[in-house]
Amino acid sequence: MTNAGEIELLPGERLDDLMTKELQIIQSREVFSFSMDAVLLARFASVPPRGRVIDLCTGNGVIPMLLSTKTQAAIDAVEIQPRLADMARRSVAYNKLGDQIRIIEADLREYWKTAGNGIYDAVTVNPPYMPAQTGDQNENEHYAIARHEVHCTLDNVVEACSRLVRTGGKVSMVHRPNRLMDILESFRKWRLEPKRIRFVHPHADAEANMLLIEAIRDGKPSVKLLPPLIVYTKERQYTDELVRLYYGSNGAWAAGADGKENE
Amino acid sequence: MTNAGEIELLPGERLDDLMTKELQIIQSREVFSFSMDAVLLARFASVPPRGRVIDLCTGNGVIPMLLSTKTQAAIDAVEIQPRLADMARRSVAYNKLGDQIRIIEADLREYWKTAGNGIYDAVTVNPPYMPAQTGDQNENEHYAIARHEVHCTLDNVVEACSRLVRTGGKVSMVHRPNRLMDILESFRKWRLEPKRIRFVHPHADAEANMLLIEAIRDGKPSVKLLPPLIVYTKERQYTDELVRLYYGSNGAWAAGADGKENE
Repeated sequence: MTNAGEIELLPGERLDDLMTKELQIIQSREVFSFSMDAVLLARFASVPPRGRVIDLCTGNGVIPMLLSTKTQAAIDAVEIQPRLADMARRSVAYNKLGDQIRIIEADLREYWKTAGNGIYDAVTVNPPYMPAQTGDQNENEHYAIARHEVHCTLDNVVEACSRLVRTGGKVSMVHRPNRLMDILESFRKWRLEPKRIRFVHPHADAEANMLLIEAIRDGKPSVKLLPPLIVYTKERQYTDELVRLYYGSNGAWAAGADGKENE
Repeated sequence: MTNAGEIELLPGERLDDLMTKELQIIQSREVFSFSMDAVLLARFASVPPRGRVIDLCTGNGVIPMLLSTKTQAAIDAVEIQPRLADMARRSVAYNKLGDQIRIIEADLREYWKTAGNGIYDAVTVNPPYMPAQTGDQNENEHYAIARHEVHCTLDNVVEACSRLVRTGGKVSMVHRPNRLMDILESFRKWRLEPKRIRFVHPHADAEANMLLIEAIRDGKPSVKLLPPLIVYTKERQYTDELVRLYYGSNGAWAAGADGKENE
């Protein structure tokens, strides 16, 4: 918990340190907290130094805020839930990023129809991982929408990415490895050719539990499988690489960002 | 080079130790030597304790010979090149495996048409990795056929696997990660649902250069991404796990089986 300074926090909200260039973000256990997934996607995604970038399923805006530290591009960010879009907007304002980041409350299935085709140089997305009506769907509506394909299927998300990105532009996504086949099938269907895939393993001898993928719109087929990203050492410490991904971090996470919030 | 005992070796041939249950295999630098890929596939593949198994693109028969150490199933093995099929047959005879392993000289594109559909419980295949007319196609015809899709495309191979395996049976393949998209597309087309994928990285911080994949005919969608298999330690020694995969091996490879022969 950080001193909230001049910010107005709603009941249940707190201000957490993003551990990157003094960024602070509004979170709420009752509504939404970002996960390790979002941070790793922001680090993994290739974004141009300038131009236009969009983040879909932005939640409380963690990805556009982290992207702002590595690009001067204009960043749009789409969130369907008014409560989360409001949190994101207040975080952006508090960090004085209003000139770079625009939070758009919209349904990604509709947004591209009005925004226009191919207008972004890069797209990032941390979509709901689970099909609707599978697993333990959360009774909390905010979490259910963030985690389950309530408002959009994986294929809807991939279509939106493909519609919004220009030819040669990049789409980066974080997802679960067990959906690999569906992801790749949708990517090819929507002319997004995977170029870089990185699997994240909690331990060196464990199955992957996260997948980072970057594709190029109308790119040539040939994909690189990057070195595995291992989260914990045998001694249950974060690995050096994971700590490095949090520039300047001591390896401690922002409260609530324990990688399990967005399961 | 091993004492050839009573075996008749043709010019250029030698007898190599498979380092598994005293198996010996005929190799030839001029014609074909097995690679690390084949050994890792034989270790990775799930085969039933009994029943019927088939290995396609068997080369000098290394995979059926290694499989014979972990199953009592009847093993058929198909090779299109007469010279290689002959080497494989003599190796099988020398190891007294003729009751278990049958080497079939055939074109895999034709074999399933006469053999019948769905007659095998498991299929293994280490196919040519490179499309025809790409890369440095080897001038040696034997190597060209083993490495390039001269006689069969990836899709031909996957179709043959799918035709030969029964519903619920398993197909295991080793291939190159840069072909991942083509592999998965063909697998889905031919109703082989990937269940286990393992990437092999030469070093922990290097891109994957090998891919092991196992699918189930008409299986349910959901794939596991196994822990990465790392070949070398930072000190350029084989990792413990790689050595373990060669049961009882001291980590030295059979001469010529340095993992580069089948590039």
